[in-house]
Amino acid sequence: MKIGILTSGGDCPGLNAVIRGAVLKGVISHDAEFVGFRWGWKGVVEGDFMPIERHDVRGLSKQGGTILGSSRTNPFEGEGGGPENIQRMLDENGIDAIIAIGGEGTLTAARRLTDAGLKIVGVPKTIDNDLAATDYSFGFDTAVEIATEAIDRLRTTAESHGRCLVVEVMGRHVGWIALHSGMAGGAHAILIPEQPKTIEQICEWVESVRDRGRAPLVVVAEGFHLEDMEGAHSHKGLDAFNRPRLGGIAERLAPMIEERTGIESRDTVLGHIQRGGAPSAYDRVLATRLGMHAVDAVYENAWGSMVTLRGTDIKTVSIAEAVGSLNRVPQARYDEAKILFG
Amino acid sequence: MKIGILTSGGDCPGLNAVIRGAVLKGVISHDAEFVGFRWGWKGVVEGDFMPIERHDVRGLSKQGGTILGSSRTNPFEGEGGGPENIQRMLDENGIDAIIAIGGEGTLTAARRLTDAGLKIVGVPKTIDNDLAATDYSFGFDTAVEIATEAIDRLRTTAESHGRCLVVEVMGRHVGWIALHSGMAGGAHAILIPEQPKTIEQICEWVESVRDRGRAPLVVVAEGFHLEDMEGAHSHKGLDAFNRPRLGGIAERLAPMIEERTGIESRDTVLGHIQRGGAPSAYDRVLATRLGMHAVDAVYENAWGSMVTLRGTDIKTVSIAEAVGSLNRVPQARYDEAKILFG
Amino acid sequence: MKIGILTSGGDCPGLNAVIRGAVLKGVISHDAEFVGFRWGWKGVVEGDFMPIERHDVRGLSKQGGTILGSSRTNPFEGEGGGPENIQRMLDENGIDAIIAIGGEGTLTAARRLTDAGLKIVGVPKTIDNDLAATDYSFGFDTAVEIATEAIDRLRTTAESHGRCLVVEVMGRHVGWIALHSGMAGGAHAILIPEQPKTIEQICEWVESVRDRGRAPLVVVAEGFHLEDMEGAHSHKGLDAFNRPRLGGIAERLAPMIEERTGIESRDTVLGHIQRGGAPSAYDRVLATRLGMHAVDAVYENAWGSMVTLRGTDIKTVSIAEAVGSLNRVPQARYDEAKILFG
Amino acid sequence: MKIGILTSGGDCPGLNAVIRGAVLKGVISHDAEFVGFRWGWKGVVEGDFMPIERHDVRGLSKQGGTILGSSRTNPFEGEGGGPENIQRMLDENGIDAIIAIGGEGTLTAARRLTDAGLKIVGVPKTIDNDLAATDYSFGFDTAVEIATEAIDRLRTTAESHGRCLVVEVMGRHVGWIALHSGMAGGAHAILIPEQPKTIEQICEWVESVRDRGRAPLVVVAEGFHLEDMEGAHSHKGLDAFNRPRLGGIAERLAPMIEERTGIESRDTVLGHIQRGGAPSAYDRVLATRLGMHAVDAVYENAWGSMVTLRGTDIKTVSIAEAVGSLNRVPQARYDEAKILFG
Repeated sequence: MKIGILTSGGDCPGLNAVIRGAVLKGVISHDAEFVGFRWGWKGVVEGDFMPIERHDVRGLSKQGGTILGSSRTNPFEGEGGGPENIQRMLDENGIDAIIAIGGEGTLTAARRLTDAGLKIVGVPKTIDNDLAATDYSFGFDTAVEIATEAIDRLRTTAESHGRCLVVEVMGRHVGWIALHSGMAGGAHAILIPEQPKTIEQICEWVESVRDRGRAPLVVVAEGFHLEDMEGAHSHKGLDAFNRPRLGGIAERLAPMIEERTGIESRDTVLGHIQRGGAPSAYDRVLATRLGMHAVDAVYENAWGSMVTLRGTDIKTVSIAEAVGSLNRVPQARYDEAKILFG
Repeated sequence: MKIGILTSGGDCPGLNAVIRGAVLKGVISHDAEFVGFRWGWKGVVEGDFMPIERHDVRGLSKQGGTILGSSRTNPFEGEGGGPENIQRMLDENGIDAIIAIGGEGTLTAARRLTDAGLKIVGVPKTIDNDLAATDYSFGFDTAVEIATEAIDRLRTTAESHGRCLVVEVMGRHVGWIALHSGMAGGAHAILIPEQPKTIEQICEWVESVRDRGRAPLVVVAEGFHLEDMEGAHSHKGLDAFNRPRLGGIAERLAPMIEERTGIESRDTVLGHIQRGGAPSAYDRVLATRLGMHAVDAVYENAWGSMVTLRGTDIKTVSIAEAVGSLNRVPQARYDEAKILFG
Repeated sequence: MKIGILTSGGDCPGLNAVIRGAVLKGVISHDAEFVGFRWGWKGVVEGDFMPIERHDVRGLSKQGGTILGSSRTNPFEGEGGGPENIQRMLDENGIDAIIAIGGEGTLTAARRLTDAGLKIVGVPKTIDNDLAATDYSFGFDTAVEIATEAIDRLRTTAESHGRCLVVEVMGRHVGWIALHSGMAGGAHAILIPEQPKTIEQICEWVESVRDRGRAPLVVVAEGFHLEDMEGAHSHKGLDAFNRPRLGGIAERLAPMIEERTGIESRDTVLGHIQRGGAPSAYDRVLATRLGMHAVDAVYENAWGSMVTLRGTDIKTVSIAEAVGSLNRVPQARYDEAKILFG
Repeated sequence: MKIGILTSGGDCPGLNAVIRGAVLKGVISHDAEFVGFRWGWKGVVEGDFMPIERHDVRGLSKQGGTILGSSRTNPFEGEGGGPENIQRMLDENGIDAIIAIGGEGTLTAARRLTDAGLKIVGVPKTIDNDLAATDYSFGFDTAVEIATEAIDRLRTTAESHGRCLVVEVMGRHVGWIALHSGMAGGAHAILIPEQPKTIEQICEWVESVRDRGRAPLVVVAEGFHLEDMEGAHSHKGLDAFNRPRLGGIAERLAPMIEERTGIESRDTVLGHIQRGGAPSAYDRVLATRLGMHAVDAVYENAWGSMVTLRGTDIKTVSIAEAVGSLNRVPQARYDEAKILFG
């Protein structure tokens, strides 16, 4: 069997470990052959791929990024796009199946292509850990670890100056990175998309920390929204930045907190360092296992399925059922964390 | 309610985070008071304890070790030992319940004391991850991370010299640290207590790595035994060391491998660095949650129970049922890892 | 002798190690007493200080921040400010001398106060390493290490997406952090205040990297200026942000590079993580030694002097001579680095 | 010009960075060609080498080990050994000069070969930092950093158990790693080859720490010797181990301390992790610069010289003068450190 692999979407620590796990499992257990599509679906649509031999994956488990490159190309668009064109390309090159490593967009595309007859197995990639079908996704542990190390560093500076510090971490729709790094780093407020709060509530937390003689540390997920949007929007001056990119919420919150509490406040946006570089040991093991099990799913003809983690086991679930169900931070987990700071 | 906490047995990253989680949860949610027994059960037997206030646990989640001290004292021994003496001490000091953080010995003692009427809740502590009642125990992730970082470092040296390197990690009865750090670090052989192997099998793996032009890296758990003990014992000269402590197996294996394969071989014992220092973010979150839920168990009068991790949830289980069931590496997990190196 | 210590200005890894080194040296070798002024010169002006005993500095060498707090208060301003008031406060409290740990502002103030008769010794603190009187200043090595780790992480992401990445590091007047972290991280362009470049030159470097099939990585010091300011200012739309704080240059460069080269470009500002948290071993040793030698300078009545590193030795120099001479990156060092990327 | 590079002796973080620095400097500034001899002098003696192109050194600055391999082969021995044979091999292959990266043995051999007319430039490699001709050697900073991190971890365990911990670090003839990591990690005793001490003195330090309520932490260089060898040798039982390898001194000291002080004592040998893996940013910069300047020395026909660090500058010195002068820890530096623990 000849299997094509692709990595799609934003960078995530463990992508290379998935590739290595798949190739070693396929070559050693099934005598499979592998090719890698370059730059995600772009390589599929353009028929751009390269062979991956066993020795090509040497040492990859600890290497950040993806040797295949990644992009946000949509496989239904462009000249070579759509199921018929892709199937033709696969047939012409003797490629029997595809392992697609990517986020919700990639998995949805994989399902649609599978519905049209293509042989695809998915490996979910979401650094935000926002997919309900898996307990944890690879890359998340590394992101939490990096965010926690940064928070550890930042808090000594906050304490030295008696300042309030607002740290923005990743998490567009869900607050898992903020929740875990905030708990690990001893944050005094954790703000996540699932739990809109008013600026008054946030300032109340900040002031109670100050009153205990400490420097308030606020961890906020990029997707957090203030509950009272009126209040937020009244700060027209700040909105004038109108930034179409990372960094908005912490940058808006810090001056609002300073204005209302009188506590000097600073913001820091951790940004891309959360999604690059060597994966943690946890993520290396998880990603390697997901890659291996994806190959098993290929040999079980489990088209349209994807591999996930449940407890300590790797399972296979239908992409159709899995995608679209957001892994929100449950109320109970937020309440639990809130006791530590509220 | 006045709750006494103790930490018992070997060091483990996350002990302080458990204490912090318990104290914050107890003080904030239940208005509880806390005291800490010094040096594990020794403090209980001798009535030696100190108050723990909220501000005493400040910043503790990232601090290695235990502020309470630890020892291996048996609570059934000595002048103040046994259920009656302990209950009297608790009554005299108005202590209502105990949260005991410790390994199998501590948990077994806690169960026996609970059978005799004492009010105790357990938090399992095992860096080896050898307790079947919990998916993972705190400290394990940190140990794996440290072992993996060490393996990453050691492998460049092995490659530079074309040597075989035998790295000994912790794991007396089970091979989880070896399995995970070996998978994460790309080991060419993983040797664990659950899977005795002959020296011939090990050398076969080592030679096949050498034949592929690489430097063989063997990760061995301290509790691994050669299958063919005759062969092992014939190396009398080495046994003459007769070391009653860490370090035996790698030190024995390296010269055996060198002698049989002709490949220059070295051993390294990672030792205590695996169980000290700041916990990983994963372990801080897990330990904090275990501490918080232990207090809930106290307020639910769940005497004789302990807190555990199942999937992403913290659960309560009976110590009586939990203890004694060793969390062995299943055959399927070993086979999975073996594909990567065998 | 009773010595007062203060830390002033921005946070810097090693402040606590200086304090610890001074206190241990003073207490053990000279039987000195110590007090710590709170929040820098503010504590001096307000007579706000606390005793520092030997046990107070326990474990401080690895702890980030400063246990004394810091601020940017000017000792010549306010009710208790100026040499007479400060001398009176010192006399009233029996404080014989001051060790002032701070940047150029603090050292200049210390010199002026010394000219007026106060007994002060300085310890230079500059994370940017911008003081000519010392080979390296404490905190610099840690900042370089953190920036390098971040660059290591960021480059895998850049490679995975085939993007240009512009990383902004600290360095207001001099480019040492950019030079060292850029060399260590394998940057393809290093932009520093000492070496203004045109956007055309930068884009030429970026394109030559792209033409070799790689993802361009640009490391820029916050104080870098484009040579052709006309060109820079013509991007009026970007200037509309009008941000009076960290982050300007990378944020401006990335879209300029993308517009001119067609290479997708992103920026990341490392910010405060470079100046917080545990110091590197190098900085712990350097800071400890500086603290110890500052006490020696006190006992040598070397008022108006400060301690510095020359080769492997700690020396004492006159603040008057030392301050004002900026430690610029020499042309030869920039040329050396440029060979690696130009 | 065609330049051959070799790396010889034990592993050391930064070897690859030297190679990269040399190749980039040579290719870009001088249009040089490079070959790499495999396995140190072995490759020279056997005429075993490979071309090194610019793209071969990509990403090497942060990679541990050496892509060329290393060994302890003596270039004066064997069939192809000695100056005539080597010169013939160089001539036959059009190799004009050699850059030899290695320790004292390699540098001495390089000097002797240079005396016989060969064109060789040296780059000193000593993780122990034992060469007087250079302020610091690459790899040393990384070793100190790793040892310090380990000490940080180990001390929490020692404190948790109220134990004395004896940590053995590298340093055969000089104690620099012990001195710096001991100062950085807050050791209570630092034992180095330059300063023999009696077991009584050591126990006095240990007991004074215990009397202050702390867990004694002893950092010992592998080359340390007890002053009163009579006393040491009377522990015949321990000497029976008669171990011809790393690990001796800590293993002997711990039981001696325990026996005399009654304080439970453990030893840990850090071993190979100190010399493998990714170099620190400091070492990457230093190693890169040394590699670049070695090429300059080649183009200056500075045969028989080697590159060194003086202050912040890279200098060239004669190997003949440099080798043989051991960089011992001066009395003043030991006295300085002793104040912190004695």
